Amino acid sequence: MRATYLYGPGDVRVIDVPDPVIHDATDAIVRVVRACVCGTDLHPYHSMAPTPQGSSMGHEFVGVVEDIGGDVHTVKMRDLVIAPFVWSDGTCDYCREGLHTSCRHGGYWNAGGVGGGQAEAVRVPFADGTLVPVSVEENSPLIPSLLTLSDVYGTGYHAVRAARVSAETTVTVIGDGAVGLLAVLSARQLDARRVVLMGRHKDRTDLGREFGATDVVAERGEEGIAAVRELTGGDGTHVVIEAVGHMPAYQQAVGVVRPGGVISRVGVPQYKNAPIGFGSLFGPNITLTGGPAPVRAYIDTLLPGVLDGRVEPGKVFDREAGLDQIADAYRAMDSREALKVLVRP
Amino acid sequence: MRATYLYGPGDVRVIDVPDPVIHDATDAIVRVVRACVCGTDLHPYHSMAPTPQGSSMGHEFVGVVEDIGGDVHTVKMRDLVIAPFVWSDGTCDYCREGLHTSCRHGGYWNAGGVGGGQAEAVRVPFADGTLVPVSVEENSPLIPSLLTLSDVYGTGYHAVRAARVSAETTVTVIGDGAVGLLAVLSARQLDARRVVLMGRHKDRTDLGREFGATDVVAERGEEGIAAVRELTGGDGTHVVIEAVGHMPAYQQAVGVVRPGGVISRVGVPQYKNAPIGFGSLFGPNITLTGGPAPVRAYIDTLLPGVLDGRVEPGKVFDREAGLDQIADAYRAMDSREALKVLVRP
Repeated sequence: MRATYLYGPGDVRVIDVPDPVIHDATDAIVRVVRACVCGTDLHPYHSMAPTPQGSSMGHEFVGVVEDIGGDVHTVKMRDLVIAPFVWSDGTCDYCREGLHTSCRHGGYWNAGGVGGGQAEAVRVPFADGTLVPVSVEENSPLIPSLLTLSDVYGTGYHAVRAARVSAETTVTVIGDGAVGLLAVLSARQLDARRVVLMGRHKDRTDLGREFGATDVVAERGEEGIAAVRELTGGDGTHVVIEAVGHMPAYQQAVGVVRPGGVISRVGVPQYKNAPIGFGSLFGPNITLTGGPAPVRAYIDTLLPGVLDGRVEPGKVFDREAGLDQIADAYRAMDSREALKVLVRP
Repeated sequence: MRATYLYGPGDVRVIDVPDPVIHDATDAIVRVVRACVCGTDLHPYHSMAPTPQGSSMGHEFVGVVEDIGGDVHTVKMRDLVIAPFVWSDGTCDYCREGLHTSCRHGGYWNAGGVGGGQAEAVRVPFADGTLVPVSVEENSPLIPSLLTLSDVYGTGYHAVRAARVSAETTVTVIGDGAVGLLAVLSARQLDARRVVLMGRHKDRTDLGREFGATDVVAERGEEGIAAVRELTGGDGTHVVIEAVGHMPAYQQAVGVVRPGGVISRVGVPQYKNAPIGFGSLFGPNITLTGGPAPVRAYIDTLLPGVLDGRVEPGKVFDREAGLDQIADAYRAMDSREALKVLVRP
């Protein structure tokens, strides 16, 4: 089959690899119907150390089950399934607590002999724990929105859940990528009183307004901080969602959070150390939360709104590409030409 | 009157200063009945830049009201009062939310023309908002426990409240100072399932066991982390209270917190930057919370237990000194000879 590999900065190739086969009795083989490129994929796209063997890519996909191991029970042949960006056994204590990203037997795609979603097919470990079957045809117009449940919608939702957003809460979302925009949507779903979106791409912030942003701040850094503070009577907002992962976004978050408030990070941090001392987090009693979203835990909650059309998170896809054009999809997302690219294998 | 000033590292002096007088109509003058030395006082005792004018000291005191301004209504002459370690107006939105440490008109003692508690008397701004009158005589044996409501008991309680400790929660407390020990007591009050105290002074950890610690780990650093992990099946505890403030304690907290758990800091951080990236907090979805405790918010909750003797937080005082011996009190606490010194002005 064809699969996407990254060999070094900017070096995306689609190559031939062996078809995946059942390895463990709890595996399923899923033919990929739609995958996509993630903002997170752009981090290694910028900075991975070149390797001759490359790394398989993609952690978001919707597909059809084409084979199952002898110990797979809740997932059936020909099911259309959503695959979360982490696979998990679904039975350990962490999974039962809803923290599937810390599953005792789970893991990330593209590691340890498991491939990625930017391919024609994937071997899925712990199929019963990992995959969520949906009664939808593979040519349904709902597919893009269902695909966001693999990662970006669940990640935006995790950000606001971890921050305990409620009707009393004012929220700033830093970042107008897919996760930031779906954090806006999620904040509205939890009835946030006000949602300030910080982003400078008008087509994206327009979608953010459609998703429920009440204010948009295009400035960044100190200017952006001043603008949010002016909007909020000098205080900042109760919650700040950091959906970027770079240090300036973190600094911006510290700058616009209200005393006693919460910074919730879902952009994968591209730094190890950051200010958390008296002058940043401690003095004003700021809580820092977030992490990789256990999206598997949220699919049951978010799926009904997608199925009945109340929300359309799939609007974050503004471009489509065949698998053979995926290198151009990376380029277009990296240059901010495209917000998020849907990939047809 | 006599008051304690710090002039540089190790240089504590008791000097004559003018008696405090009413300055604003919302002020009260409080004659100090008992004060004490705080672990936090040891930070400037180690490292303050020497100054010829010195800094007044002390932020914990219980006293008797000797004068009030024309606009003081809930506090009366001759009331015995508890003074929180931050003064606050009691009426602004932050105070109403219970975050008195961020009061819009409040402040810390020993700054801006307001003196400190290690003195014969103190001018208290916003007396109605700041002071809590208690129907107790000034020679009551309850005074030491009431004095802990100024800071260390409320601070320990803040740590466990911010971390949302409940009957489902396992807790590690790092630090066997007064705040750590009272975090143990507070965790037991919130029914924590298990409380591991990390400390290496046996007399203190014995008091910790009396306050409710179920386990004591004397090792520090990597050995200490390994010991807590061994006690907890390899996982660490849901909550870690960091009651020290130095970087090794923070690193220890990161080492013993369970995925999805909470690190709650109440030791004033003596660092600006620290690890919060993928490998420390982000990957395992660790929440970092805490800050200076709004102890004023907790006095109503904690006072009944002190008054009826259900808890005796005053047991953290293991030495008494007159004001003129306060330099020796600092020395004894700094050398860990004394846990916490009660001061009689």
